[in-house]
Amino acid sequence: MSDWKQRRERLQAMLQEQGLDGFLAVQNVDCYYLCGSMQSGFLFIPAKGDGVFYVRRSVSRAIQEADSAVFPLASLKELGKQMARDFPDLSFDSDLKMATTLDVLPVALYQKLQQSMSQVEWTDGSSMMKKLRMIKSEAEIASIRKAAKAVDTSLQDVLATFRPGWTEVELLANLERELRRHGHFGMMRMRGFNQELVVGMVGSGGEIAEPSFFDGPAGGSGLHPAFPQSASTTPIRRDEPLFIDVGCTIEGYVIDQTRTAVWGRLDSAMERAYLVSEDILRALEQLLKPGTPAEAVYFEALKLAEKAGLRSHFMGYGSEQVKFVGHGIGLEVDEWPVLAKGFKQPLEAGMVIAIEPKFTFPGQGVVGIENTYLITEQGFEKLTCSREGVWHIL
Amino acid sequence: MSDWKQRRERLQAMLQEQGLDGFLAVQNVDCYYLCGSMQSGFLFIPAKGDGVFYVRRSVSRAIQEADSAVFPLASLKELGKQMARDFPDLSFDSDLKMATTLDVLPVALYQKLQQSMSQVEWTDGSSMMKKLRMIKSEAEIASIRKAAKAVDTSLQDVLATFRPGWTEVELLANLERELRRHGHFGMMRMRGFNQELVVGMVGSGGEIAEPSFFDGPAGGSGLHPAFPQSASTTPIRRDEPLFIDVGCTIEGYVIDQTRTAVWGRLDSAMERAYLVSEDILRALEQLLKPGTPAEAVYFEALKLAEKAGLRSHFMGYGSEQVKFVGHGIGLEVDEWPVLAKGFKQPLEAGMVIAIEPKFTFPGQGVVGIENTYLITEQGFEKLTCSREGVWHIL
Repeated sequence: MSDWKQRRERLQAMLQEQGLDGFLAVQNVDCYYLCGSMQSGFLFIPAKGDGVFYVRRSVSRAIQEADSAVFPLASLKELGKQMARDFPDLSFDSDLKMATTLDVLPVALYQKLQQSMSQVEWTDGSSMMKKLRMIKSEAEIASIRKAAKAVDTSLQDVLATFRPGWTEVELLANLERELRRHGHFGMMRMRGFNQELVVGMVGSGGEIAEPSFFDGPAGGSGLHPAFPQSASTTPIRRDEPLFIDVGCTIEGYVIDQTRTAVWGRLDSAMERAYLVSEDILRALEQLLKPGTPAEAVYFEALKLAEKAGLRSHFMGYGSEQVKFVGHGIGLEVDEWPVLAKGFKQPLEAGMVIAIEPKFTFPGQGVVGIENTYLITEQGFEKLTCSREGVWHIL
Repeated sequence: MSDWKQRRERLQAMLQEQGLDGFLAVQNVDCYYLCGSMQSGFLFIPAKGDGVFYVRRSVSRAIQEADSAVFPLASLKELGKQMARDFPDLSFDSDLKMATTLDVLPVALYQKLQQSMSQVEWTDGSSMMKKLRMIKSEAEIASIRKAAKAVDTSLQDVLATFRPGWTEVELLANLERELRRHGHFGMMRMRGFNQELVVGMVGSGGEIAEPSFFDGPAGGSGLHPAFPQSASTTPIRRDEPLFIDVGCTIEGYVIDQTRTAVWGRLDSAMERAYLVSEDILRALEQLLKPGTPAEAVYFEALKLAEKAGLRSHFMGYGSEQVKFVGHGIGLEVDEWPVLAKGFKQPLEAGMVIAIEPKFTFPGQGVVGIENTYLITEQGFEKLTCSREGVWHIL
């Protein structure tokens, strides 16, 4: 059975369990996840039986790629009528219960859907979709492995050519080009509203310690108030921590990793903080096995940061701290589980999680490490293949 | 008066005209447009008086940058209470009428807003925001001019280094790096749900003629079904049209331009279609002046494509055609006005519009041209500064 069909069947089991009649996938990534084709359209999965991908464009592309029936969609207005005709067993004229992803669906589009299917009672299927996507298949893991390799090779190759005078953005631009050559798409997809990510956060010294709207421990001054994150045009300075939180997307799948580098030598406070981040990561690895509640990993990280006397620098500084130490990753960077308070759900084999203990020192820099891990039956496997430790460049 | 304040006052005039009590900006780009800072938060503009930027993160960054009062926002739940306290003249306990942008706001976030301000009646302010952003200030135009220069220089520099054997994505990666060096952000923002754009569409021959979900005349086979648009890993072939629809983002502002290139010679059919696209653009330029209904530009383009016998290849092929010939551009690629049927609104001085007559030939390629124009009191000014005509490389 294809991965696509397995996913749809797992979704159908969830729908049946919750007494729902169907699921309407509206987001490009969700549609791809369920049928292998990313088009402008709506993928309907009934609780029982085969679904239909209603496609505006490109219909011909969908027909080539999708593991699903593909029907052209003339207009959103007609969708309800088309579905009623195509699914005669569903009672479109009475009280149908359907789920869709209200976490990403814009209100205006939702209102049009409601008009097109006036008898349907909608429920939020976001959690269902996030749970479904949380457990990765062999093929998904294989793509993430390729991404891990691409980012490692690119980072090594680019840092080997580093020259004094490079600005943060010059380093980032060279990394992006190298990643592109290895099959990277050009961006890392995020599900969160208003969140944006090209390939990550790169910066040295005080610049990267600047907080930003991005929901991560390092912000970065960025290029302009209209893009206030990641690399700036500041030259990389000697003896300052160079923070390289860069991933890439291969075959749709994202890897996320961070390495700390330096041209010259870190001062002892930065060096020590970096080593604490590695120690924390080693300790957290011991918790990576089926059964550990996701939030327990975060609590342990907080405890260790506190013990090291670095609590106020952990995952951002002071009031600008973020409240997690890791996140699921796959087709998007911000998947489930989140290693944060409130996520009591136990880890399960097949989850892929980026863990990123980091310390922020305003005016001085950000140091830390981030690896992406697969949870296995026995414990974990590290998917990130870049060497650890501080990278000395030049 | 600052640009930011002028924009807020124009918005307030619209609110008063429509009998609304205020506007809640929720999207990162809209917040930046109205106060000069892009943070995670909500910018409230009352119909009269000063607004407040309620910021989750980064508060310190917002305080540095925003042309607005900045108040920390503890939680979305508290927003209603905070606003009621900060705006005692507004009757938060009875029937307040507020606008927000329902075209981009996700349903789940909207439902939380409704809970936080249960007495507020919400109306869709998307059109208001799009109208407001349609007319550019001197500073905005200056940024677009910089972007036009960056893309021209980058394109010239990269094509001068072209070597046989380059793949589409290699050309694109080199272009991206060069654009980055000129201050480009790494992506071109789009407002449309599910739309994605790194720097545009690059491809040669049949690859770029493949349709995609992207709402534009050229699609591209892309790297994978999970990123089914723009450049592929196919080597650029001799004598095939090389389509380069690449823009960039400088200081938040996007330029969009297309040039057709060739290594060797175009065959006579492609050469002719390219020349028709230039002829159409020249004819459309004559309509670029205040007072012309936006849709009239599109109708004229259709008429000329028909007259040239190329109607079925215009703006995509056959059933995969898109139904516009141009679009407003600014902080996002897909702004108003759209040069399409139904957009009866007359052109006005200060609008910035990309116009892109193109012809798609399945299996052979896409040819065409795209310039970005400023509408002036007298007519138009071409902001794109790349030379026209087919670019011969090597």
